[in-house]
Amino acid sequence: MHIKTTPIGYSHTEVETVPNFYKTSKVTGKLIIEKKYSDGLKDILPGNMINVIFFFHKSPTFTNAYLRVTPPHREQERGVFSTRSPVRPNPIGLSELEVLDVEENIIYVKGLDMIDGTPILDIKPVK
Amino acid sequence: MHIKTTPIGYSHTEVETVPNFYKTSKVTGKLIIEKKYSDGLKDILPGNMINVIFFFHKSPTFTNAYLRVTPPHREQERGVFSTRSPVRPNPIGLSELEVLDVEENIIYVKGLDMIDGTPILDIKPVK
Repeated sequence: MHIKTTPIGYSHTEVETVPNFYKTSKVTGKLIIEKKYSDGLKDILPGNMINVIFFFHKSPTFTNAYLRVTPPHREQERGVFSTRSPVRPNPIGLSELEVLDVEENIIYVKGLDMIDGTPILDIKPVK
Repeated sequence: MHIKTTPIGYSHTEVETVPNFYKTSKVTGKLIIEKKYSDGLKDILPGNMINVIFFFHKSPTFTNAYLRVTPPHREQERGVFSTRSPVRPNPIGLSELEVLDVEENIIYVKGLDMIDGTPILDIKPVK
């Protein structure tokens, strides 16, 4: 079974190197969403926290060698699903970002841990 | 641009009707992961909370009519991305489940808000 997804938009930031975890990131940028989805962004408000599901588009292809990984600042290998490694069977990332503003199809955010040009798959409210 | 994903496993529960939000669910069940990924489940421990990214495989095809939705217990329409509606441009769901136990390729969980047979795309630690 294969599941096909299409990006709803892309992240944009001027910052070249972003932290690898949103909780340690103060990087600002924007999520530029397809204009046809603008109506779907209504009711996302400044101050809201949003979950952003995205695609690690720069990750190498997953192989069994990546089933155990040694996270940054750790000494021991761990099972990949107990980590947030970008190299995973499905290279899907999950962030929690603060909304600074919304203008039509653009969400201005803070806490970016995804590089410029990252494909975005979904946005949900944090609850 | 299309992104192809393949389920890493499926949810299983005896319960026919599950709550539609993990925070209100006490339903137990299991996530049966492909055996080839068993090593990747190492270090997921009882008591841990995990994010599960899954596919709403029963959702109708998304059309513009679903850009605004009226959530349960609400009176006003909202933009779909400000809700957790299962009918979304990419029908991807996000849960936060409690790990009860792990045996090889099976994770026993509590808090299920996905129906029996739901395709699972990824598992990450809640941090």
